[in-house]
Amino acid sequence: MPFVSTLNQFEGSFDVPCTHRVIFERDALSTGVHLHAMLSNGDTSTRSLAVLDAGLVDAAPDLCDRVQAFFDTHTETLELVSPPLVLQGGEAAKHGLEPVTVPVIEAIRAGGICRHSNVLAIGGGAFLDAAGLGASLAHRGVRLVRMPSTTLAQGDAGVGVKNGVNQVGVEGGKNLIGTFDVPAGVLNDVTLLTTLDDVHWRSGLAEAIKVALIMDADFLAWIEHQCEALVARDLNVMEALLTKTAQMHLRHITDGGDPFERTMARPLDFGHWTAHELESRSGWTVPHGEAVALGMCVDLRLGEAMGLTASGLTDRVELVLRRLGFLQCHIGTTSIDDLMRGLEHFRQHLGGHLTICMIEVPGRSIDIHTVDSQLAVQALHDVFDALPCG
Amino acid sequence: MPFVSTLNQFEGSFDVPCTHRVIFERDALSTGVHLHAMLSNGDTSTRSLAVLDAGLVDAAPDLCDRVQAFFDTHTETLELVSPPLVLQGGEAAKHGLEPVTVPVIEAIRAGGICRHSNVLAIGGGAFLDAAGLGASLAHRGVRLVRMPSTTLAQGDAGVGVKNGVNQVGVEGGKNLIGTFDVPAGVLNDVTLLTTLDDVHWRSGLAEAIKVALIMDADFLAWIEHQCEALVARDLNVMEALLTKTAQMHLRHITDGGDPFERTMARPLDFGHWTAHELESRSGWTVPHGEAVALGMCVDLRLGEAMGLTASGLTDRVELVLRRLGFLQCHIGTTSIDDLMRGLEHFRQHLGGHLTICMIEVPGRSIDIHTVDSQLAVQALHDVFDALPCG
Repeated sequence: MPFVSTLNQFEGSFDVPCTHRVIFERDALSTGVHLHAMLSNGDTSTRSLAVLDAGLVDAAPDLCDRVQAFFDTHTETLELVSPPLVLQGGEAAKHGLEPVTVPVIEAIRAGGICRHSNVLAIGGGAFLDAAGLGASLAHRGVRLVRMPSTTLAQGDAGVGVKNGVNQVGVEGGKNLIGTFDVPAGVLNDVTLLTTLDDVHWRSGLAEAIKVALIMDADFLAWIEHQCEALVARDLNVMEALLTKTAQMHLRHITDGGDPFERTMARPLDFGHWTAHELESRSGWTVPHGEAVALGMCVDLRLGEAMGLTASGLTDRVELVLRRLGFLQCHIGTTSIDDLMRGLEHFRQHLGGHLTICMIEVPGRSIDIHTVDSQLAVQALHDVFDALPCG
Repeated sequence: MPFVSTLNQFEGSFDVPCTHRVIFERDALSTGVHLHAMLSNGDTSTRSLAVLDAGLVDAAPDLCDRVQAFFDTHTETLELVSPPLVLQGGEAAKHGLEPVTVPVIEAIRAGGICRHSNVLAIGGGAFLDAAGLGASLAHRGVRLVRMPSTTLAQGDAGVGVKNGVNQVGVEGGKNLIGTFDVPAGVLNDVTLLTTLDDVHWRSGLAEAIKVALIMDADFLAWIEHQCEALVARDLNVMEALLTKTAQMHLRHITDGGDPFERTMARPLDFGHWTAHELESRSGWTVPHGEAVALGMCVDLRLGEAMGLTASGLTDRVELVLRRLGFLQCHIGTTSIDDLMRGLEHFRQHLGGHLTICMIEVPGRSIDIHTVDSQLAVQALHDVFDALPCG
């Protein structure tokens, strides 16, 4: 660093080095080798706390035993400080700090977990957000190993560097309380996906189409080619899709130049102003994947109307989304006027200066900073009025 | 970065650049120029929330008006989103998230403070820890400008890159919940110190002696030379002392290679295993400066007994501490056996591997990793039995 001192002013700079790592491995808790490496961290003996998403445990009741068995086979190098802690999953996990974050902190303290021991968190994206916040806050940050258990989390949320919970009952409370923090490792085991219902199975597909539109035209074409296999729940094809999505997501974080979102640009939030508003107004009953699918169509229609987006791209994307099961009825009682407020909330969320990512052609995006309200209203109508329930 | 992808493993690295800045300026709220620069951040118009330590406001009842007046003179570039928020100060500010952290987060939300607007926090070290945690968590981090109001905070705590609150009523709850985060700026105005009582006036002197012992023999000699002026509350001498202390503290953070304490070494925690135990067992009725003064004497005595510390250094340091008003009766009902548990708690705090900083001669320190219990007990007796209340 250059340490500068002029009279009574001192200033110093330093860099915090971060390494972000994602591994795909099947049967990570039994035949896999990577979980042990992530938890042991090259040390002779490390302690771990395991926290599990109750929704996942409901669907896979043997999970606690499998976690316990994993640690039992590595007693020389790993110690599980207590039986796996099962906590609230789903969006309710993020209803303030109480459901998951505080119990994780308390279990870290009680279990003697320190900055050089681990929290192993297994569950969906919302659960990982809330549990990860606990790991990030306890002792100002202990090692977190994430095992995301949904398609959305394996391709997107679980690969990110954010934690957070909502302040419920107030406007602007979504992800109000959180941190940026890089996990010690992310282990994606697609065998965890087999118990998902169809809605959660396809949720990650919307995010895959999103990153394809922003970054990779070939990937979009590949997804179009794999629709039938994806609907038929082909695990190999899903693993390939999530691997590609996670890789692009991680590359955006590590190479995008703004991992902790200090500037205004948010390309990975394509389609999200509509999506966030729709989710929040529905009390998070609209699944994230469905909301993102709708939000992307709105911004594609808007882009076409503005002359930014290639003509016909919206129709193409709507077709693949419909074939995958999206674009069904999800607007509920929310009006177009309600959704329009999403633009203003998104502007506030970004710190007062609006930046919206628009797609020119698949693989190429552009940021815009003003939106014509009439065009946006029309785009919302075009998309939502065409829904089966419209 | 090098982005590495091998089969189903991806890894990327990035650096988070941080700049840490401390400025000393008198009358910062009236004739000063730096506060405006820190808050406006080169932007055309920024919003700020002001949060004040109730203990400070009690001692300086015009503070709210002075903060308001400052913003009133800069309405073209700065906006105060609400009247200054006055919250609990002192160690009680850190009794969980409720007294200060949560109200700060809620005021940030209600006031529309975003990542590019500010929280201005004015108060003592504990208040800044708790308020800063709120700023660090809201929206995953908004800009924080600190104005520390005690000698301890201006030289030490307020210059650090840590936030945190305690979990009360449990062992190991001290600073259990917190973050590492670099403030946007720290503004030290020594005119805020004039209302301090003598205990808080001298608290920062113990930390000054600590950094002098670790890093700068000349500074130790200078402090010895200035004892009378410091006891007589000479503001110029105190400002010079705090300037030097803050500068060394900042340099340790920015140039020490481990700003977020990812390794085990904690040189600035010299004397702190005894100090933390004494504070916690007293329910934080023993002031931090008094506890650190005692803790340093213990480790100096221990170092002499181990042959690590220059013979006679303890006597020299005890003399200057006594001249400054330290080493009075502060052990209360805590026994030597109680204090000995501090070693084990410190080991746990560091993540299982004990590292204690010992002084060889002023300006030169060495880390040790094992401590002979008998020698430590003897050192505790040597220091505490010699107290006026011993």
